[in-house]
Amino acid sequence: MALPEILELLEQRREQHLAELVEWTAIPSISAQAQHAGDLRRACDWAADYCHAMGLETEIHPTAGHPAIIARHDAGARAPTVLLYGHYDVQPPEPLELWESPPFIDNWGSGEAVGGNAEPVRDGALYGRGASDNKGQLFAHLAALRGWFEVAGGPPVNLRLLIEGEEEIGSPSLGEFVATHADELRAEWGVVSDGPMLAPGMPAVSYGLRGLAYFQLDISAASADLHSGTHGGAVPNPATALAEFIATLHNPDGSVNLPRFYDDVTPLETAEREALAALEFSDDEYLKGLGAPTLAGEEGYTTLERRWARPTLEVNGIWGGYTGEGAKTVLPARASAKLSCRLVPRQEPAAIEAALRRACAERLPVGVRWTLRVFAGAPAVLTPTDSPGVQAAMHALRTGFGAEPAFIREGGTIPVVADFQSVLGAQPLLIGFALAEDMPHSPNEHFRLDCLYGGIRTSAALWDELARLG
Amino acid sequence: MALPEILELLEQRREQHLAELVEWTAIPSISAQAQHAGDLRRACDWAADYCHAMGLETEIHPTAGHPAIIARHDAGARAPTVLLYGHYDVQPPEPLELWESPPFIDNWGSGEAVGGNAEPVRDGALYGRGASDNKGQLFAHLAALRGWFEVAGGPPVNLRLLIEGEEEIGSPSLGEFVATHADELRAEWGVVSDGPMLAPGMPAVSYGLRGLAYFQLDISAASADLHSGTHGGAVPNPATALAEFIATLHNPDGSVNLPRFYDDVTPLETAEREALAALEFSDDEYLKGLGAPTLAGEEGYTTLERRWARPTLEVNGIWGGYTGEGAKTVLPARASAKLSCRLVPRQEPAAIEAALRRACAERLPVGVRWTLRVFAGAPAVLTPTDSPGVQAAMHALRTGFGAEPAFIREGGTIPVVADFQSVLGAQPLLIGFALAEDMPHSPNEHFRLDCLYGGIRTSAALWDELARLG
Repeated sequence: MALPEILELLEQRREQHLAELVEWTAIPSISAQAQHAGDLRRACDWAADYCHAMGLETEIHPTAGHPAIIARHDAGARAPTVLLYGHYDVQPPEPLELWESPPFIDNWGSGEAVGGNAEPVRDGALYGRGASDNKGQLFAHLAALRGWFEVAGGPPVNLRLLIEGEEEIGSPSLGEFVATHADELRAEWGVVSDGPMLAPGMPAVSYGLRGLAYFQLDISAASADLHSGTHGGAVPNPATALAEFIATLHNPDGSVNLPRFYDDVTPLETAEREALAALEFSDDEYLKGLGAPTLAGEEGYTTLERRWARPTLEVNGIWGGYTGEGAKTVLPARASAKLSCRLVPRQEPAAIEAALRRACAERLPVGVRWTLRVFAGAPAVLTPTDSPGVQAAMHALRTGFGAEPAFIREGGTIPVVADFQSVLGAQPLLIGFALAEDMPHSPNEHFRLDCLYGGIRTSAALWDELARLG
Repeated sequence: MALPEILELLEQRREQHLAELVEWTAIPSISAQAQHAGDLRRACDWAADYCHAMGLETEIHPTAGHPAIIARHDAGARAPTVLLYGHYDVQPPEPLELWESPPFIDNWGSGEAVGGNAEPVRDGALYGRGASDNKGQLFAHLAALRGWFEVAGGPPVNLRLLIEGEEEIGSPSLGEFVATHADELRAEWGVVSDGPMLAPGMPAVSYGLRGLAYFQLDISAASADLHSGTHGGAVPNPATALAEFIATLHNPDGSVNLPRFYDDVTPLETAEREALAALEFSDDEYLKGLGAPTLAGEEGYTTLERRWARPTLEVNGIWGGYTGEGAKTVLPARASAKLSCRLVPRQEPAAIEAALRRACAERLPVGVRWTLRVFAGAPAVLTPTDSPGVQAAMHALRTGFGAEPAFIREGGTIPVVADFQSVLGAQPLLIGFALAEDMPHSPNEHFRLDCLYGGIRTSAALWDELARLG
C-alpha cells in the first residue's frame, strides 16, 4: 500500500508546496490582456516543468491563442484512464486599489516587501490572483502526483493531464484542441477541480454545472449623438429602446420571457429538491456576504435551486450615450448590452440564440437597427451521483478532509466539461477545493491553506480510489 | 448714419474675424470636466480682453463655479437698455474618434497640422467644439460691437453684456449671480444668440424655448460585482431593474408616463399649429440628415411640434457592469442612467423632480437601492411675436441675411432666459445664427462662415434698430 507512505511524505512537504504555489501564483498570467502574453508562456512553462520533473511525459502545444499542455503517464492496460483538466491563466486583477496586498508577489521570502506590506500568506490563506482559481486547486493535484511518482513510480491510473491558458476568456481554442487531440485525451473519467466546496471543512462533489450562452446586443438609430433639446421627442432613442427590450425579458414571476425558453428544461425531481434543501445553507448569511438588501429570482424555487439548477437571463453590462460626470444633453446614437443565459441540462445554446434573435426581431421598434453577436456557448453538465467514479471521489474527499462530502451543483460554467463528455467519453468528476468566499474574479482572491492541504491529500487518495474501478 | 460705414468696415474684416474666432474656439473650455478649469479661465480672459480692448467697461466676476463677465457701455438716459448674453464654455468633445479634425486646434495657420489633417476651416465652415455653440454666435456680436466702437464710439444703446462659463452644465451659478447683480443687469431687452436659424439662408426669431430638468439615477444591489454563474438568478440585478424602470417612463403612444406630467402643460393653439405647419420643413429631409431609419415620438403631433412645443423624457446616458470587449460573466453591483425632461410653458422643474422621485419610489423593486440626483432645472420661455423688440430683430435679420425671417420655437433650453424675464424684466430676443445641421453637442460641430458673417451684419444692424425704440 503506497498511499499511507505518500500521505506522510505530503505532510512533510507542506512548506515546500506552499513556496511552490506562491512562485506560480506570482506570475501575472492574465489571458484577457494582450501585454501579458509572455507571462502566460512563463506560467505555462512553470507547470510543464513541474510535470516533466516528476516523470510525466509532457508536451507544450501551441494553439491559436495561448499554449496548452498535455502530459501523460501510463499504468498499464488494466488501469482506468483519467483525464485531469486545469488552467494556468487568471482573471484581470483590476480594480487594483481594492487589493490589500499586491495580486502578484514575486519575491516572497526574499525579505523585501513589494508595494509595502506585501505578505501573501496571512490568516491561514494565500492571497493573490489565481491562488484559488485555478492555480491553487490544480497545484493540489500536481503536488499529490509528484508524491505518487516519488513513492510508487507514478499513480496507478493512466493519466492524461490537460492544462490550458484561455479558460478565463471562455476557452476559445480548447474545443478544437480537444477534438484534434481526442485520441490522446480519451478517458473514462474527467477530473476537474475548478469550483467550490460547500463551506469551510465541508467538501463536496458537484454533479451539475450550468451552461452558458453569452451575447452582445447593439442598437442604433441616428448616425451620431444628437442634441436632446433640438431633436428630443422626434428621433428614436436607442437607450430607451434597449431598456424597453430588456424589460420584456423577464415575467413578473422572475422567469425568463423568451420564446420556448423552458421547453427543453429538465424539471427538478422531488428527491433532488429534498437533497438540496437538506444542505446547510442560510439565505440570511448568504445575503450578509453579498451586502444586498434582498434576494430575488424565479418564484417557486429556493436560493440554491435558483443558483444551481434553474436557467437565468442576466444583463452583464449596459452602456450608451453620455456616461461621464454631470449633465450632457445628448440623444444617444447607440446603446448596447451584454446579455447572458445560464442553461440547465437539455437546453441548447443555439436554441437560446434563436429565441433571443426572434425576441429582438419581434420586440424591438422599427425605428432602430440592431445586431446580436454571440461570444460563448456551452451546454450544461449533469453527472449521475451513483456512478462509481463519483463514489470514488466521495471516498477520496473523506480521506482528504476527514469529513463527509455533500452533493452540490454549481451555477457557473466550465465550457470544456461538456466536450469531455461528448468528444472524449469522459464522465466529469467535479471536485472543487475552493470556497465561494475565496473571491475568485474579485479583489483579494485567496486560497485557504487547509483547502490546499486537504486538496493535496484528496488528490493522492483519488488516484488510488479510481484505480480500484479499473 | 454710422451703420453703412460699420457694415463696410466689417466686410473688410472677414479674415481677421475668422482668425480671432479660430483662436477662441481652440481653447478647450469644457465646463463638465474638472481638469479644464484653467482652460475655462483662458477662454473667459480671451472674451474679457476682447470686450475691454474695444472700449467696454469690463469686469470678471468669480462665481461658485466658473467666472462670469459683465461688460457695459452707456449711451445716455434716452437710449434703451439691452442685455446681451452668451457663454464661453463648451460641451465635452467625446467621442473623439468620430471627429474628422481635432475639436480644439490651437496652431491654425502655423503651418503645423495637429493630429494629421487638421484644417479647421473647410467647405465654407469652421469646425471645432464651440464653433457654433456658443463662441461663434457670441463672437458675431463682439465683432459687430467693435465696429460700432471704432466708427461711432459705441453702439447707440445702453449695453449690458453678460458672458458665463457654465451654460453647458446647466448654469448652476448663474441664477444667483443674476439676482445679485440685478441692478447692474436690468434691461428692457435680453438678446441671446444661442440657437438655430430655420435653414441655411433662412433666418428666424425664436419665440419659445423648452425648459429642462436633468437627473442622474443610480441603482445598486450587492456591494460588489459578482460572478453571474455562481450568483445569477438569486441576486437582484441593478441593470435589469434600471431597464425595467426606464421602460415604464413612456406610454405606448409615446407620451411620458410620469404622475401628473401633463397637468401644467399649456396646449398648442390652433393658430400656432397652423403657423408651424406653414414653415418649410420636410420630415424626409430631416430624417436624411439624421441617418435614422424612422422618426418617433408622441402620437398626434407633427415633428416640429414634438421638437419645439411638446415636453419629453429622454435617456441621455446609461451604464453598468462590464462594458469592455468580449464576454465577462459579471452580475453588476451598480447601474446608472442620465435622464432628462424638456419642459414647455407652465411646467415646473421641481414638480418634474417630484414626479420622477415618486415614480422611482413606486416602481423600483425593493431589492435595489436608488438615489436620484438633480443636475439642472429651468422652466420654458415664450415671447409675444408682436412686441417692438421682436420686430426690431426681424429688421436686423433682413439687413444681416437679405432674407425674410421666420418665427420659430426651439427645442433646447437656455436656463437663464427665464431669469432675464422674471428677475431683470428683460423681454427675451432669441436671434440664433446657428443651424441644426451644425452638430452642436456632437462630433464635428461647425459654424458656417455665411452664418458668421450674416450674424455679424445682423448684430451691427440690431443695435441701430433697438436704439429707435428708446
